[in-house]
Amino acid sequence: VDLTEDELLDAIRRVLDEPAAEVVVGVGDDAAVVKAGSGDVVLTTDALVEGTHFERVLTSARDLGYKSIQVNVSDVAAMAGSPRYALCALTLSEQVDAAWTMELLGGMREACAEHGMRLVGGNLARGSEITLAVTVMGEVAPGRAVTRWGARVGDRVVVTGSLGGATAGLRASREHPPWSPEERDAIHRHARPIARVGEAVVLSHHGARAMMDVSDGLALDLSRLCAASGVGAVLDLEAVPVHPAATLDDALGGGEDYELLATVPTSDAVEAAGAELAETFGIPLTDIGAIVEGDGLRDPRGRPVEPSGWDHFR
Amino acid sequence: VDLTEDELLDAIRRVLDEPAAEVVVGVGDDAAVVKAGSGDVVLTTDALVEGTHFERVLTSARDLGYKSIQVNVSDVAAMAGSPRYALCALTLSEQVDAAWTMELLGGMREACAEHGMRLVGGNLARGSEITLAVTVMGEVAPGRAVTRWGARVGDRVVVTGSLGGATAGLRASREHPPWSPEERDAIHRHARPIARVGEAVVLSHHGARAMMDVSDGLALDLSRLCAASGVGAVLDLEAVPVHPAATLDDALGGGEDYELLATVPTSDAVEAAGAELAETFGIPLTDIGAIVEGDGLRDPRGRPVEPSGWDHFR
Repeated sequence: VDLTEDELLDAIRRVLDEPAAEVVVGVGDDAAVVKAGSGDVVLTTDALVEGTHFERVLTSARDLGYKSIQVNVSDVAAMAGSPRYALCALTLSEQVDAAWTMELLGGMREACAEHGMRLVGGNLARGSEITLAVTVMGEVAPGRAVTRWGARVGDRVVVTGSLGGATAGLRASREHPPWSPEERDAIHRHARPIARVGEAVVLSHHGARAMMDVSDGLALDLSRLCAASGVGAVLDLEAVPVHPAATLDDALGGGEDYELLATVPTSDAVEAAGAELAETFGIPLTDIGAIVEGDGLRDPRGRPVEPSGWDHFR
Repeated sequence: VDLTEDELLDAIRRVLDEPAAEVVVGVGDDAAVVKAGSGDVVLTTDALVEGTHFERVLTSARDLGYKSIQVNVSDVAAMAGSPRYALCALTLSEQVDAAWTMELLGGMREACAEHGMRLVGGNLARGSEITLAVTVMGEVAPGRAVTRWGARVGDRVVVTGSLGGATAGLRASREHPPWSPEERDAIHRHARPIARVGEAVVLSHHGARAMMDVSDGLALDLSRLCAASGVGAVLDLEAVPVHPAATLDDALGGGEDYELLATVPTSDAVEAAGAELAETFGIPLTDIGAIVEGDGLRDPRGRPVEPSGWDHFR
């Protein structure tokens, strides 16, 4: 492919975008939101591909199945939706047997159970590499989906939990033990991320105007949120909550953290949301900057922050 | 994989099947049906994998995109549902460029437009082979989904259109021109199948008790319908509507025809449905046998008909 992922997505968006009353959110956000009966339905799909997203020798089938659901649930959460149903189109190679496949499905089911979801369908095909294409459908009260284009100048920028852990975990898992407790935590975060479903609803209740999950590194994802909203951001690099096993570069440029990135109108709202997240989920919320006029990311001294995150096509 | 596709699906079903009030139809049918708001939602996913389902040198990107939507819509149609939304998780190799990808999406959009559907989301990933994992969501009036387990002894077995054409078309497309008009029609049917959405609704209105699409050959698909319903069938081989470029073996054992296979209670219902299908869609409906006690397929003289259709894992 001769374009970056974002360039290709842009091109696709231009081909597909057509306003329609029943499509609340179409292509270009974490998930689609559509009208169905009396509610709004959230739809998202994401594939994990062998060799690109995982190596079979490094990942257990159970962890892989678990993660394939969580990464999709994370997209539904990022709209402030509640996940309900999952489907999986599985492409299997000759290298895996039925036992591996059942472990994979066991992991999918485990993740579904954690979110009160049901795996309602799927499809099997044969290929030369393994691909897990998962679709998750969720629901959201009409008009309550939080998109990535609602940020306004003056909003505070917040992020849940800590960043860079998944990248540090992937790195540690390729080295030999012994691992420090922080590295073990990072390895676990990479293998079994947990989508922030309840946390997203709390942020929505506290007035979050724009929200997305951090899957491709904070710098790239925040720059996407800014571009979608037609604004810029000042990112306070010293405030970014970096996982204890990770570096600031891991947090800015690594992927797969699946934390929530949001903008809220005031510092009071940040404080109130943070208190509720800490009490209910034991998860910190950190103020990492502000939405400003213009475009792109700058640090507090005005120097540009490059969005060099995970691009699937670079 | 050390099991056949049906054996593996059976194993998966045993792991996943859990009764739940909000899941009208779960794993094991053409599509899932779930409660959402005031309606029933139909969900299905199906992947087309390079090397398994298509060869890039033999298929245009536009036809491939078109077909990837139609095969999923066919599963929604087989539940008597109306397709509404599509998503696509695309895995692209380095062998394709942005122009190819846009053509692919153009074909998807064309198929969506034919069915009044919207492509609302997707995902891009990189891999060593191309995979198109499409999900389609549709709607059906509560309680009106037609499953494959409703066939009863005495039902007539019917099929829309003609069978074997896709297999004959694939064969012809691998040979050199000149092609006969029948072969050209068969090649078109393989490249651009059209899901029988309206036809399925007509069959449902005329009392269809069980229904599925014929994607893996009539013999295998009818034996699946019989197994799901706990019945057998007498298949009148001489009555099977074979495409003019195809053989009876193509019809019984070939795949990708995407016609509808259904059971209806009486010969009068067959006639009434057939008249409406001919008038409204110009599509024939053929009575090809009867549902009987027992299991498996027999011809009218009592000899077993082997379900040797397309198995993705054989």
